[in-house]
Amino acid sequence: MYHLTALITCLAISVYFWTGMLVAKARAAHGIKAPATTGNPDFERVFRVQMNTLEWMPMFLPSLWLFAIYVSDSIAAAIGLVWIGGRILYIVSYSKAANKRGPGFGIQAFAAVALWLGATGAIAWRLIHG
Amino acid sequence: MYHLTALITCLAISVYFWTGMLVAKARAAHGIKAPATTGNPDFERVFRVQMNTLEWMPMFLPSLWLFAIYVSDSIAAAIGLVWIGGRILYIVSYSKAANKRGPGFGIQAFAAVALWLGATGAIAWRLIHG
Amino acid sequence: MYHLTALITCLAISVYFWTGMLVAKARAAHGIKAPATTGNPDFERVFRVQMNTLEWMPMFLPSLWLFAIYVSDSIAAAIGLVWIGGRILYIVSYSKAANKRGPGFGIQAFAAVALWLGATGAIAWRLIHG
Repeated sequence: MYHLTALITCLAISVYFWTGMLVAKARAAHGIKAPATTGNPDFERVFRVQMNTLEWMPMFLPSLWLFAIYVSDSIAAAIGLVWIGGRILYIVSYSKAANKRGPGFGIQAFAAVALWLGATGAIAWRLIHG
Repeated sequence: MYHLTALITCLAISVYFWTGMLVAKARAAHGIKAPATTGNPDFERVFRVQMNTLEWMPMFLPSLWLFAIYVSDSIAAAIGLVWIGGRILYIVSYSKAANKRGPGFGIQAFAAVALWLGATGAIAWRLIHG
Repeated sequence: MYHLTALITCLAISVYFWTGMLVAKARAAHGIKAPATTGNPDFERVFRVQMNTLEWMPMFLPSLWLFAIYVSDSIAAAIGLVWIGGRILYIVSYSKAANKRGPGFGIQAFAAVALWLGATGAIAWRLIHG
């Protein structure tokens, strides 16, 4: 079973859910009425925070699970926690200013790529060695 | 096995696929040529319908499956059906007018949060009680 | 085990990751500073390439895996490879001109729908025949 990876999945979903809440709050604060997604740079940054987190979900979640299945549940969960930490830093920093988004983005990208590389390597090894 | 949850997953994908068809139709109807995604409020609402459904997929699908695995296939599928119903109401209402999107959005959010809470609680319980 | 489907999943993620790299490159080339996502048609096409690939991930990946589980790992992986080929054609063509996006889009849509139909049919058959 993959209890730790399952818990990290739920935590990652809650962080992503939070970005949607920030957009709803920014919509109200800056008077950007749906369906508009532009018109105020402070709103647009928060909207991009949500979109970018959405963009990484289909890379992060499948890589996390394939890593857990092919390598290790606990290592997958540990790297997943790094991804979540990087994401939170990205969300908080980018919401403040666009030029502060680098470090958080780098940390979460590093974690996601590590999960992808580990999973891909382990799958290839299994295919070759039966 | 999780046959009911698997079927609900396919149904949810078909509802989401339908939002993409609505955008293609609205593109043609309002003469919004790709890659543009703005220029007509009727098109923009339909585009936001698709985007919002996309935004919820990485919350809904993993929560649905973790609920099915850790709690129950049939209860997961039943709550998943509520999510699909709420989504259809949201899609139809928001396509007509932005201020009609509330009830459908609320129903699908309630269902997704219920799946997330149930899954997270059951995973935590398993981790604590071995 | 579903080693071939797991490998195709990693390949699909890498193709999707590449669309994000193209957007970062186009941002720099055309001087579109985050959080903006509009302002230059060459940038906007590349941005739509990424968004459209993102839009199809929640249809492609779950359909691929349900097909693998309910039908066959190797057939799922083969159709998944067609999806990846269509996507690459779509990415390369649409990045050049909006009116060239048709064939690649059609191929990947055909592959995704085939996976969805096969999975849905096999799940329904299992539910009926126990």
